[in-house]
Amino acid sequence: MLSLASDTNQRWLEQVDHHLADILIDHAHCEKKAAGCAMNLLFAYVDKTEIVGELSEIVREELEHFLLVLDLLKRRSIPFRRLTPSQYGQQLNALVRKFEPDRAVDRLLVACLIEARSCERFAMLKDHFLHRDSELAEFYGSLFESEARHHTTYVRMAKLFQPEEKVKARLKELAIEEAKIIADVYPLPRMHS
Amino acid sequence: MLSLASDTNQRWLEQVDHHLADILIDHAHCEKKAAGCAMNLLFAYVDKTEIVGELSEIVREELEHFLLVLDLLKRRSIPFRRLTPSQYGQQLNALVRKFEPDRAVDRLLVACLIEARSCERFAMLKDHFLHRDSELAEFYGSLFESEARHHTTYVRMAKLFQPEEKVKARLKELAIEEAKIIADVYPLPRMHS
Repeated sequence: MLSLASDTNQRWLEQVDHHLADILIDHAHCEKKAAGCAMNLLFAYVDKTEIVGELSEIVREELEHFLLVLDLLKRRSIPFRRLTPSQYGQQLNALVRKFEPDRAVDRLLVACLIEARSCERFAMLKDHFLHRDSELAEFYGSLFESEARHHTTYVRMAKLFQPEEKVKARLKELAIEEAKIIADVYPLPRMHS
Repeated sequence: MLSLASDTNQRWLEQVDHHLADILIDHAHCEKKAAGCAMNLLFAYVDKTEIVGELSEIVREELEHFLLVLDLLKRRSIPFRRLTPSQYGQQLNALVRKFEPDRAVDRLLVACLIEARSCERFAMLKDHFLHRDSELAEFYGSLFESEARHHTTYVRMAKLFQPEEKVKARLKELAIEEAKIIADVYPLPRMHS
């Protein structure tokens, strides 16, 4: 269901265990970036009125998640701060084709794959923390569902720009690239390292 | 209460009456831009945790207004489309000083003045349409309140970057510039023409 071409390597959970504070701070930044990405899509395709409502809703939900992570940080006395991002988003965005409607399809599918990967990792984290940190387990469980929904929404939006077969084929291609990018270990602990 | 240095000239209402569709379409774009502006501020000052919650809330509310205007357009069978913006926002943003914390203060106060001007005009529109178009009168009345709130919030946020006296003095200066900019008639009918 998630369109990903690989599963997260278990070594990532070791990074999580050793650097939980950084992972949580990076998570907050990721939610903020997800909101920003949906907002950029809204600005770019504002005349496509079928999608502006859904994009607005995604912006709103991602900002809500951003504030939820900030709250969690506060409860745990972890100061929020700027953090060098992993190269993940930048490398994925470099795959976006230049001309419309390819460009729109790629931007939406890249957003879809980022949601899918986050979703997969939230599910892992939920299980990982189930018997160690029930607050975190519950937290990741609650985010899982809406990220899965966003993933589906982005694919549906892409189909407004190109026929279903083309979108599906491109999603497969991009998923293979995403799997390569995420497998290429980023040295610092991040949501997408 | 609104920090503006001038009242809107009545000739603007003539533009409204002659080009209501364009004014409504531009209004939708303005709400979208207000959301984008709050999002940009959130990205720029994300480590100022006292304001990210309020900025998120503004993004959410402005997007809600954006969708409300799109709905209104739909009900009136006015197709939403791209529109050359008035020079108002661009001219105001040109006044923003380059170095922090001046820059933060100016960006927040420019946002405050745009909210204030919109607010003033919504109040005018509410009265103007009261006996001619009750749907519009009610619509502008409902937006008035939250834009007034945003105006106050932006001033309060600016005071986190500089002492109150400095912020107040700068707001006065910028309000005088805003009055000049809005008085310099933009030929096409817009929310800020």
